[in-house]
Amino acid sequence: MNTIPYKTYLEENEVPECWYNMRADMKKKPAPLLIPATGKPCTAEDLAPVFCEELIRQELDETTPLIKIPKPIRDFYRMFRPSPLIRAYFLEEALGTPAKIYYKFEGNNTSGSHKLNSAVAQAYYAKAQGLKGVTTETGAGQWGTALSMACAFFKLDCHVYMVKCSYEQKPFRREVMRTYGADVTPSPSMTTDVGRLINAEHPGTTGSLGCAISEAVEAAVKTPGYRYVLGSVLNQVLLHQSIIGLEARAAFKKLGVKPDVIIGCAGGGSNLGGLIAPFMGEKLRGEADYRIIAVEPASCPSFTRGVYAYDYCDTGRICPLAKMYTIGADFIPSPSHAGGLRFHGMSSTLSELYDQKLMEAVSVKQTDVFAAAQQFARTEGILPAPESSHAIRATIDEALRCKAEGREETILFGLTGTGYFDMKAYEAFNDGTMSDYEPTEEDLARSFAKLPKI
Amino acid sequence: MNTIPYKTYLEENEVPECWYNMRADMKKKPAPLLIPATGKPCTAEDLAPVFCEELIRQELDETTPLIKIPKPIRDFYRMFRPSPLIRAYFLEEALGTPAKIYYKFEGNNTSGSHKLNSAVAQAYYAKAQGLKGVTTETGAGQWGTALSMACAFFKLDCHVYMVKCSYEQKPFRREVMRTYGADVTPSPSMTTDVGRLINAEHPGTTGSLGCAISEAVEAAVKTPGYRYVLGSVLNQVLLHQSIIGLEARAAFKKLGVKPDVIIGCAGGGSNLGGLIAPFMGEKLRGEADYRIIAVEPASCPSFTRGVYAYDYCDTGRICPLAKMYTIGADFIPSPSHAGGLRFHGMSSTLSELYDQKLMEAVSVKQTDVFAAAQQFARTEGILPAPESSHAIRATIDEALRCKAEGREETILFGLTGTGYFDMKAYEAFNDGTMSDYEPTEEDLARSFAKLPKI
Repeated sequence: MNTIPYKTYLEENEVPECWYNMRADMKKKPAPLLIPATGKPCTAEDLAPVFCEELIRQELDETTPLIKIPKPIRDFYRMFRPSPLIRAYFLEEALGTPAKIYYKFEGNNTSGSHKLNSAVAQAYYAKAQGLKGVTTETGAGQWGTALSMACAFFKLDCHVYMVKCSYEQKPFRREVMRTYGADVTPSPSMTTDVGRLINAEHPGTTGSLGCAISEAVEAAVKTPGYRYVLGSVLNQVLLHQSIIGLEARAAFKKLGVKPDVIIGCAGGGSNLGGLIAPFMGEKLRGEADYRIIAVEPASCPSFTRGVYAYDYCDTGRICPLAKMYTIGADFIPSPSHAGGLRFHGMSSTLSELYDQKLMEAVSVKQTDVFAAAQQFARTEGILPAPESSHAIRATIDEALRCKAEGREETILFGLTGTGYFDMKAYEAFNDGTMSDYEPTEEDLARSFAKLPKI
Repeated sequence: MNTIPYKTYLEENEVPECWYNMRADMKKKPAPLLIPATGKPCTAEDLAPVFCEELIRQELDETTPLIKIPKPIRDFYRMFRPSPLIRAYFLEEALGTPAKIYYKFEGNNTSGSHKLNSAVAQAYYAKAQGLKGVTTETGAGQWGTALSMACAFFKLDCHVYMVKCSYEQKPFRREVMRTYGADVTPSPSMTTDVGRLINAEHPGTTGSLGCAISEAVEAAVKTPGYRYVLGSVLNQVLLHQSIIGLEARAAFKKLGVKPDVIIGCAGGGSNLGGLIAPFMGEKLRGEADYRIIAVEPASCPSFTRGVYAYDYCDTGRICPLAKMYTIGADFIPSPSHAGGLRFHGMSSTLSELYDQKLMEAVSVKQTDVFAAAQQFARTEGILPAPESSHAIRATIDEALRCKAEGREETILFGLTGTGYFDMKAYEAFNDGTMSDYEPTEEDLARSFAKLPKI
């Protein structure tokens, strides 16, 4: 009998009551958001037309390490949290590795991913402020689904701009959002100025995340009683997602185990930032050391091939500028099937931590990712999301390194979600028609040339 | 603070080590399977070409109450069990009912339903017997997915005959099975005698579960090293599914709670039989009393409008005859969206218990079911399977009765799975185009006229 159980759940009274704000422990803070027109840092007043008040406070707060989770949010969390910390005994056996592999599984909720952790917080604060509704964008659909669920619960209107190609390819994702009462509009649409402009400039375009962001922000600013919410990149989102890492660390403490390597997929950074938060905190405070690895698709390599610079967050260029690792706001979205990892930039906080060499990054090819996904599904039972499978690929590679070196390292990775709505991508892999794509040096140089001159 | 947690998980060492066989406590046993040609009860020898040896033993065992779960099956169970017993605080609040509602949630695994409980057992016994592979049929796809997962784990070939209309309407279900390495053939196919016959007699037919069963059985019998496995109706399946009820009862004991009413959806009976097993055992032994309610669709009402008689299990009439509540093997499958509740008959064991008035049955209309599903999704967060939503409908109705009568009853229902692959049905509901269908008296009379004369 194994002494470490397959799954470790915290008791409800062991679930963290505060989120953890990594920035409080960073000596050099992430660079501030800037107003494009003036080049000056954004103030709370600048952001007030776009975001909820309390979320702005959280966005700008660089000093408070622990922020209390309001009770209605904790109550909602009880519907799907604590999430299990799972020991991957079957995967270890299949790999024949001496490494001990754990994963924190965030897919056991209807949104199918960790996105719900921040969606419920953002919907709650919007409701508490007396707002009527929120707008957002969604690419792969996890975030839109999560926000729809949270808005249904708090009785808040929810308007989702869904990247047109996803809207058409994933009608079932759309239908889940509608079941939760959300309005879903394919983007670019004809309902916003920026949408009409993009449609005029690029007839027949199937949209992009950057474009959908512009539309959602415009709709929020122009509709009384509405604000805009975002599922990744922002500091507030990483704050809410810290619940993942806090629970994982509490479960490890219960087991008397300490991870050596922590691995997460990285698109905008919401999952990775949440998973690593308390561990990075220990590292920042000099209390412990961990290898922390961000995994990104070779098709959208902001950490591994991007530059650390101020850039636009959206195609319409109506959002503040953020300093981040970026491959350029004009970079054309690749045909990668991991829609959640297709954003051109990376969280400012994670970018600063990466720049300080407090974490590593690797990029992986799509077909290698799906081979890992298939192996994981067949051994551990869970069909992983394409995004999460990037972390699985890197974990398997690390576990095989441990095998070659005869090292018993303990690996933790974030299994952010399930792939039930991504079967088109699995079909391409099963049929052998999936392609690998990487931008050329010329592609990137062209994109970098368009970065704002700050 | 509530004293009853939202979710109760058993510890891994509290998970039951034996399945419970209800028949052992039944004074009047279920009627035996009969050989169509002779009218005589099936022996183990008769069944040997079709089923695995150990499963035949379990099928025919009417006397052993507890059957030990082999360790490899218990290890596999650890991947997705114990499943949570959830207190539906949010639904109770939304209904304003004094009733206390609990549900046992079986959807937190990739098959999306309770079907995996029996799939892993059947795959294990097939492997232990040294077989090369198994065949089966699937309608909605949950069973086929579950079996694919189990076969991938035990490295067993898996051939699934999928009802053609589902194969075409649910390409993503099919793709999940392929990801787990299964072969999936639309039924009726041209690969079996019975398939060719049905295609010739009914050109362009989109198939039925009864037809897919015939094909899968024929393929198993004709392929060396293969046997046939089935996901519902059979005694062995109810035995394996008893893990649901055993865990639920153990969790209730931990909480110091006793349910008054137990509600489950009923198609072939696998979920209902599993959920109620230990509670029915107490009832049979005179130790306790519970109201037990089977919920079936108005479109396929075997309990509420069927007859208790011997009938064919499959369209091709190559399987043994079973005594059961049935609306007739020739009954044309209705357009109900709950594919898992479309079988014409009901488990012999449950049929006998119903006939002995040890349980009740109600039928519910499809649009009422989806209204309940939507309310549940918006309050409890989980998007339920159409099948499970039948139980939700009945639970809400019982909770509202409790409200009207001012009674604080404790209700347990089985939430068998999630609806992620059923968004076409939700779309019809969201669009207001879903129809209610019930067979006429004439439809049923025509079907009853074709019952075998035994």
